[in-house]
Amino acid sequence: MACNQNKQNITTDKRKLTEIFPKGEKGLSETFTGNAYNTGLVDADSTFTTAVGNVYFEPGARSNWHSHPAGQILIITDGVGYHQIEGKPIEIIKKGGIVKCPPNVRHWHGASAEVGLQQLYIVPNTEKGIVKWDEAVTDEIYQNVK
Amino acid sequence: MACNQNKQNITTDKRKLTEIFPKGEKGLSETFTGNAYNTGLVDADSTFTTAVGNVYFEPGARSNWHSHPAGQILIITDGVGYHQIEGKPIEIIKKGGIVKCPPNVRHWHGASAEVGLQQLYIVPNTEKGIVKWDEAVTDEIYQNVK
Repeated sequence: MACNQNKQNITTDKRKLTEIFPKGEKGLSETFTGNAYNTGLVDADSTFTTAVGNVYFEPGARSNWHSHPAGQILIITDGVGYHQIEGKPIEIIKKGGIVKCPPNVRHWHGASAEVGLQQLYIVPNTEKGIVKWDEAVTDEIYQNVK
Repeated sequence: MACNQNKQNITTDKRKLTEIFPKGEKGLSETFTGNAYNTGLVDADSTFTTAVGNVYFEPGARSNWHSHPAGQILIITDGVGYHQIEGKPIEIIKKGGIVKCPPNVRHWHGASAEVGLQQLYIVPNTEKGIVKWDEAVTDEIYQNVK
């Protein structure tokens, strides 16, 4: 019986995504659909001109469409999610994956429907600006995963 | 008996650091002491002007002294290590921690003596250069942890 309980605990742990950073602040409904949590790690300044943070997306959660004046790099640290550059198909992103979005190109990112996503973002050359937020990603767009 | 074996497995897993990225290439003895493994994640280019990678340091392993023309940001994803900016005491760095080293300032980083370190590095503004390598960190300096 003790054995079975142990086994159950292991399974539960494996299904939980690794947390490296604090969960952070819930993203506003003006810029996110569903539950997404942002932790700022490095604030932009004039020395490093780089902003870094972690976002945890619960299953189904995603950002609005948005763009970055100098582009963005995503580093996926756990889970499974989606990333779409406007005009291209949704790409599935997973633990260990890297995504680049070029400057001034609209994109969105978030968790898959079934599994959450932990991702770091890097915004380089912040002297050009950080982010321009646009409209929400509709369910129709979100569900159009091939 | 089966229970005990399970328990042992759990303990072993907990002591192993989380691996998000492939282990990578062993760092050269010209620039590292001990066993350190580097995986490049983002190569510097003219669009993002940012280099990103992961280094896994085995216990006792550390970089040589070095500097970055535009500075460096470290993101600690697991384990325990040391970071020292020249002229300052060694700081202990841990999972979830962030380190910044200003431009053209000499520093070194690596694992603690007992526990390994997983860390991401971000080198911003790579148009100014990436890294300038200097001499190895002696055992005397490495062991001078308060």
